[in-house]
Amino acid sequence: MSYLIGVVFAITVMGCIFAFHNYSSVRSLPEGTEEMQEIAAHIRMGANTFLKSEYRVLVWAIVGVTAFTAVFLSWHIAISFMIGTIMSGLAGFIGMKMATYANVRVTNMARTTLDIGKTLKVALKGGSVMGICMDSFALIGAVIVFTVFKDDFQSLNSEVNWCGFTFVPFAYDMLAYSLGCSTIALFSRVGGGIYTKAADMGADLVGKTEVNIPEDDPRNPGVIADCVGDNVGDVAGLGSDLLESYVGSFMSASILAISIFINYNARGQAFIPQLLQNMVVYPIAFSGLGLFACIVSLLYVFHKKNNNNPHETLNNATWIAAMLTAILNLATTYLLFNNQDFGTLPFRFGLFSPFVAAFSGIASGVAIGAISEYYTSYDYAPTKKIANSAKEGAAIIITKGLGLGMSSNMPSVLVLAFALLFAYLAAGIYGTAMAAVGMLSFVGMTVSVDTYGPISDNAGGIAEMSKLDQKVREITDKLDSVGNTTAAIGKGFAIGSATFAAVSLMNSYLYTYIPAGSDAVMNLMNPLVLAGLLVGAALSCCFSGILIDAVAKSAKKMVNEIRRQFKEIKGLSTGEAKPDYAKCIQIATEGALSEMKTPAILAICIPVISGLIFGPEFVAGILLGATVVAIILFCHRSKLKLDTIKFQIGN
Amino acid sequence: MSYLIGVVFAITVMGCIFAFHNYSSVRSLPEGTEEMQEIAAHIRMGANTFLKSEYRVLVWAIVGVTAFTAVFLSWHIAISFMIGTIMSGLAGFIGMKMATYANVRVTNMARTTLDIGKTLKVALKGGSVMGICMDSFALIGAVIVFTVFKDDFQSLNSEVNWCGFTFVPFAYDMLAYSLGCSTIALFSRVGGGIYTKAADMGADLVGKTEVNIPEDDPRNPGVIADCVGDNVGDVAGLGSDLLESYVGSFMSASILAISIFINYNARGQAFIPQLLQNMVVYPIAFSGLGLFACIVSLLYVFHKKNNNNPHETLNNATWIAAMLTAILNLATTYLLFNNQDFGTLPFRFGLFSPFVAAFSGIASGVAIGAISEYYTSYDYAPTKKIANSAKEGAAIIITKGLGLGMSSNMPSVLVLAFALLFAYLAAGIYGTAMAAVGMLSFVGMTVSVDTYGPISDNAGGIAEMSKLDQKVREITDKLDSVGNTTAAIGKGFAIGSATFAAVSLMNSYLYTYIPAGSDAVMNLMNPLVLAGLLVGAALSCCFSGILIDAVAKSAKKMVNEIRRQFKEIKGLSTGEAKPDYAKCIQIATEGALSEMKTPAILAICIPVISGLIFGPEFVAGILLGATVVAIILFCHRSKLKLDTIKFQIGN
Repeated sequence: MSYLIGVVFAITVMGCIFAFHNYSSVRSLPEGTEEMQEIAAHIRMGANTFLKSEYRVLVWAIVGVTAFTAVFLSWHIAISFMIGTIMSGLAGFIGMKMATYANVRVTNMARTTLDIGKTLKVALKGGSVMGICMDSFALIGAVIVFTVFKDDFQSLNSEVNWCGFTFVPFAYDMLAYSLGCSTIALFSRVGGGIYTKAADMGADLVGKTEVNIPEDDPRNPGVIADCVGDNVGDVAGLGSDLLESYVGSFMSASILAISIFINYNARGQAFIPQLLQNMVVYPIAFSGLGLFACIVSLLYVFHKKNNNNPHETLNNATWIAAMLTAILNLATTYLLFNNQDFGTLPFRFGLFSPFVAAFSGIASGVAIGAISEYYTSYDYAPTKKIANSAKEGAAIIITKGLGLGMSSNMPSVLVLAFALLFAYLAAGIYGTAMAAVGMLSFVGMTVSVDTYGPISDNAGGIAEMSKLDQKVREITDKLDSVGNTTAAIGKGFAIGSATFAAVSLMNSYLYTYIPAGSDAVMNLMNPLVLAGLLVGAALSCCFSGILIDAVAKSAKKMVNEIRRQFKEIKGLSTGEAKPDYAKCIQIATEGALSEMKTPAILAICIPVISGLIFGPEFVAGILLGATVVAIILFCHRSKLKLDTIKFQIGN
Repeated sequence: MSYLIGVVFAITVMGCIFAFHNYSSVRSLPEGTEEMQEIAAHIRMGANTFLKSEYRVLVWAIVGVTAFTAVFLSWHIAISFMIGTIMSGLAGFIGMKMATYANVRVTNMARTTLDIGKTLKVALKGGSVMGICMDSFALIGAVIVFTVFKDDFQSLNSEVNWCGFTFVPFAYDMLAYSLGCSTIALFSRVGGGIYTKAADMGADLVGKTEVNIPEDDPRNPGVIADCVGDNVGDVAGLGSDLLESYVGSFMSASILAISIFINYNARGQAFIPQLLQNMVVYPIAFSGLGLFACIVSLLYVFHKKNNNNPHETLNNATWIAAMLTAILNLATTYLLFNNQDFGTLPFRFGLFSPFVAAFSGIASGVAIGAISEYYTSYDYAPTKKIANSAKEGAAIIITKGLGLGMSSNMPSVLVLAFALLFAYLAAGIYGTAMAAVGMLSFVGMTVSVDTYGPISDNAGGIAEMSKLDQKVREITDKLDSVGNTTAAIGKGFAIGSATFAAVSLMNSYLYTYIPAGSDAVMNLMNPLVLAGLLVGAALSCCFSGILIDAVAKSAKKMVNEIRRQFKEIKGLSTGEAKPDYAKCIQIATEGALSEMKTPAILAICIPVISGLIFGPEFVAGILLGATVVAIILFCHRSKLKLDTIKFQIGN
């Protein structure tokens, strides 16, 4: 079905044109007053500097891994890996660059028109560059892997025995591509995350609680670093992160298809090459049509006249993208699986089985989004309860927030667990992978909305710093708060899709590891699996702990520097003198770059080294333990964040 | 080997006599001034009232379960369950009663002698009643089950098919006994835990941070409730909790022995009834000799002349108990397994294999204790780092504490994982169960030291409240701080043993569930197991969240009441009027009793109900997920606690 690969390619080209068009249409807008331009330039430079420094650290690691792989494994794998890193890095870079151009233009649009609908459009257009680029680049990379290694693809069923593993070249090409994306995502998320949290904490702790000046006040030396953080963490970091999940979802579904057939083949069951090729292409086609749906949905918003209710507009856009993805794929499913003989494959809903599985992914994503909104929006009971306990002081509010956050896990996890079961029921292990594909298929829209948030946040900061009229700030604040609510839905998708992607990647690991022909089992009573499970669980927790500690370390330096400036620069607190923004940016950059290495290297090395020592069962345990604990930690993250905000207010 | 059961019985009788002797020797000491007597009576009455109310709630549930079990399953199971609840309840009650007599006598000993060695003896003697009673009662219950159901024990290899399960009556008698202990432990730990934390928070939040009076100041209306909390939470709750782990460890080892033989039998392998009976008795004999070692070690401390270095004394006592347990059991092992044919059992170290496995449990317990001490003692880097970041304010110290706490998981989990692997290597699945038995065999000593802590804490409170000389307070403070450090080692044991006990209980569940004859496998690729794993992980987290929320709720009420008293009772803050202690005790009691039901019922019902709906694979997943997350949450608990303390100081 390689014509579908062609269709996907055409859609990605369309995506690139659409992203480029939005990029230049936003850039052509005026930047506003000189003061605004100056502040925006500061932010832009800080963000660029950080990303360039980060990539400079990464490039050597990537070249090293690529060379090693080319020499010791195969040049196909090496090239696939490199394509992954390039695609991910590029998407993050372009998306972030756009965000740093868009922020000031959003402020200016609000300033000149005082029209929330028009301002919303600029912000979302800026965000859409990240969303669409991410989708397009991820798929372009996949298309390249498919096209360049056409021979590998044509000979899917030819196995090679290699170091004791049943080795299907094409599966390894795809895995390597996915791994390339993951590598960039890991460093981007970790580095950007440390940067943004440390800058945020540093600026707020001294500014809001010690000097008593409002958020984003230009007298605060950390305020520009805080804005830079939003861009490197919540734009570039988030983009690379979701690109990795996106690629992980469709690649692992394709790999699973190959593995299932190898297993069938080895057991002497009927083997249908055509069906296999269709099952390999299907996830990528599904995702490609998802990208198309996102473009259509965004076009609808950009050309809609009345956008005065931003919350409704963004919610509708997400819904349209989700539904359109489903409808378009119903047709693809028919095209690919009509008149096929499924043999003994557990397709309970006939030819529509993989679609039903994917749809359960979409539906559970929407459900988790609603649950996240319930737990994080100011309109519902949990947040109100927490806010209410502020009367009893900081200790009670932290305790309450922690308690509610931890118990808020349950509904989301139940939805995930049942979607997993349902998808398996519909189409077996391939179904669980397709659920991940479904959930992530319209991630372009989610990322656009998620990126719109930090752009609006930055816009508000610029308005405050350049002392614009209060009405301007009101508009950007409203956009920002809507962004927070819709981001909750986005987070719901991220949680769910990360789970599904991890589970299906793990499944493809298990299927690839298990010697072909044996029943695929991973025995929980095997103490190696159990020990791995414990270590994996601790690893997730330890990784988070190291990151939190890194933030505290970096924030501490920021706090000291900001305090120093308030003490040493005369006239700073009265607004007569200017703070040294650059020094704070430098501290945040250096902190993030030096702190990101240890946790990232640990995350990569521990599974590899322990696998070499204790074997693949141990690694399977590690993967599972790490995934489970990560879901639990991730699920109550948003709650904790909210709590921190409240705590700061309470203080 | 029923003569060994006789030996165990003799040791438990010795334990009861020893405990009774210590009880009356402590009670015969003078209570001190009238003021001290009055305060102690308040604490005693509060603690008694709470425990009685708690048991009153429980008794109906227990009678209900017992009746249901007797009618629908078998009266053997019903009686075993009831014995478990009685033993656990009794141990908690007697131990706590002693603690509430001992506290004031410790204060008085310090007051009259100003001798730290003598004071230490009184406190430890008081603590030893909980430790030794807990051990003795747990074993007496087991001996009763062995003796009363002698016929079941003699016909170990006679299986009954029952509701599709392979049913060995004796295994179910033991499981029911263990479940009885767990039921009491669950409610005691949850109820007592909510009580103590809410009272502690309530008293400190208003007293220390709002009114600025020192800890344990008699003007604080919550101060007696705080002391009561130590007794109901850290004495009765902890005692029941460790009794449950203790019983769980040796019972699950015995059950595993039965299951292994059923599996062997079904596969037509040679079956040796004598070896089976020895393997069933061995864990209980091991634990019995552990109790004997604890008694000897305590006698050594009580008769030692020079106890002026409490830290050293307590550490030595633990070491003696551990080593003596190992030596005595070396002999038992020889006695039981000499000249036996092990058939195809994976006993890699010959007849000493189960001993080697148990010893790895002891060793890893000691290692985890050392790790816990490193992370929580003021002498080492982690705590110093956290204390150091206090300069940067509350937010940084919380972040830092959370980060270090989360990353401190790793070393302990690594030790656990490798001990698990080593024990398995030594003696297969029976070995992992024996590692739990080894680690818990001298828990009597650990609990004695752990109970000595709250007694000293209470003693300090009484000294403060009755305005005794500062020197008295210095002695009790020193004892208390030593208690905190040695308690870290105790916590290490609790973490490790809970893990091992949970793993081996899970293994016995898996082995009992798996139809005899098939290879015991629990497939990780089975989506039911995976879904269960996710739900179980969320369950642990949700359970903790509900508890934390319950503490916040109850603490909120305490805060309001204490504030009200400071506002409405004239002359309270100057010390001219007395606060209404009883009202605070009442609030803490009512809060704990009403909040403990939901989480406890959830913890019991979810596995049962989901098992009925989704089957045993799902439940296996739940158990594993819950265990893994519980370990992770538990491992960084101590760190978080430390952090809270620092935070309060910082404020």
